[in-house]
Amino acid sequence: MASTIYLGLVHYPIYNKRNEVIATAITNFDLHDISRTSRTYDIKRFFVIHPLESQTALARDILGYWREGGGGRYNPDRQEALSVLEVAPDIAAVIRRIEEAEGSSPIVVTTDARRYPNTVSYTGLRRRLEAGRQPCLLLFGTGWGMEKTLMAQFDYILEPIYGRGDYNHLPVRAAVAIILDRLLGSEWWLSRD
Amino acid sequence: MASTIYLGLVHYPIYNKRNEVIATAITNFDLHDISRTSRTYDIKRFFVIHPLESQTALARDILGYWREGGGGRYNPDRQEALSVLEVAPDIAAVIRRIEEAEGSSPIVVTTDARRYPNTVSYTGLRRRLEAGRQPCLLLFGTGWGMEKTLMAQFDYILEPIYGRGDYNHLPVRAAVAIILDRLLGSEWWLSRD
Repeated sequence: MASTIYLGLVHYPIYNKRNEVIATAITNFDLHDISRTSRTYDIKRFFVIHPLESQTALARDILGYWREGGGGRYNPDRQEALSVLEVAPDIAAVIRRIEEAEGSSPIVVTTDARRYPNTVSYTGLRRRLEAGRQPCLLLFGTGWGMEKTLMAQFDYILEPIYGRGDYNHLPVRAAVAIILDRLLGSEWWLSRD
Repeated sequence: MASTIYLGLVHYPIYNKRNEVIATAITNFDLHDISRTSRTYDIKRFFVIHPLESQTALARDILGYWREGGGGRYNPDRQEALSVLEVAPDIAAVIRRIEEAEGSSPIVVTTDARRYPNTVSYTGLRRRLEAGRQPCLLLFGTGWGMEKTLMAQFDYILEPIYGRGDYNHLPVRAAVAIILDRLLGSEWWLSRD
């Protein structure tokens, strides 16, 4: 019985390009792309985390259109994808929701371009998720990354994604896709010719 | 010496949801996300393929803003990512451009949700790219996929991406990220604990 996986997209506290702590805006494209990728990899819920009611109201409007409005009739696949999405004001509220649903606290994991003392490999985390002792909350930052005292509170930090060459500015939507595939994708292709 | 890899995003001939053959619209988000992922995985060029001048003019306008206009000063990383992007009217023109640059024809590979007689595994194609005998053009469809007589002309079709569960509607931007990581990502994480 593998771990139940939850995803969170964090919009505060986030660094901007001048290293100031800000709240980033919720974007329509993140909601759609990350919901579709989440459904493909059987994520239990994808939380959009933002402290401002004006921003979460926007997310709820988009959800309403796809869940009850014209969007669902036009594209039922999209409606199904967005059924995974939920808004939350902060990470603590997300953890409480998971504790209520699962009866135990999740391990909290994120990713970063730097290495930390609690950095974990993809294979290592994959094995741990397959053992299934605890649910897992995978958090992704927006902007220029999550504020550093927040980063220090997580259980594990995944290894940076190395491509080829020295450019390292993947969209968060692409990072989510790659990381879910590394952690949860069908493993057969690793060993087959 | 590994193969040089080129990417193409095909907008015609494409099926819509009613199985009619159409040309899809170029979207700003595809250009940005796929350019950034392409640069991360050291793709030589990312071709946006569309037969209509009105659509490719839009792509050129976006490129101009980021290459020579205000965008490049605001965000040099984005300017660098978009330097990989080029527009082309059709797949034949892309193949000619690659032949001119490389002195040999590329193997042409795409992906599909179905299996074909020439379906190839990720490991198999990865080994072939590492052997480096020919350049490779990886094509991605938009909409509901490329028209079937076009599909029949390609050298290889990659295995479908299986996540977990039965939902299978990844955004093309996520499919590009996952496939480049499977084919070109640093391999160390496959064997390390």
